[in-house]
Amino acid sequence: MRFAAHVEVRLRPGIADPESATIERALPALGFDDVHELATGRSFRFEVEAESAESARVRAEELAGRLLANPVMEDATVSVSEPVRG
Amino acid sequence: MRFAAHVEVRLRPGIADPESATIERALPALGFDDVHELATGRSFRFEVEAESAESARVRAEELAGRLLANPVMEDATVSVSEPVRG
Repeated sequence: MRFAAHVEVRLRPGIADPESATIERALPALGFDDVHELATGRSFRFEVEAESAESARVRAEELAGRLLANPVMEDATVSVSEPVRG
Repeated sequence: MRFAAHVEVRLRPGIADPESATIERALPALGFDDVHELATGRSFRFEVEAESAESARVRAEELAGRLLANPVMEDATVSVSEPVRG
């Protein structure tokens, strides 16, 4: 079966995030003074061939930890949904 | 009230995505031949000051459409959750 997986990679708390700081600094001048605490990240969606949702999640976490995120600086959040096809 | 918002920005279908293609081509050699259909995107998390979840969603969609996504090439998916503080 194939399961849809989603990985969101974000900088760990305390790691400098100049992109987010720049966006947040620009927001008031652009009319968005009601927006705060902005943080950017990267997202990855893919399909995993596996026997069960649990083994798909394990594989997605391996992929996230080894290739998609830099564990020194980044946290990865992995979610796996129901099979997309049989 | 402040509402937590999440925006995921992805390339529209049909727009060339060389980053995803490069990752997907590398996967089998790295031991991930069970992973397919990889697509990359950007994610933004922030807080919106608003009277209701509905008006927070409207503001988050304005921000996504005007500043976070390029509507010619990208789609933005916006979600707003319950208030994070009073």
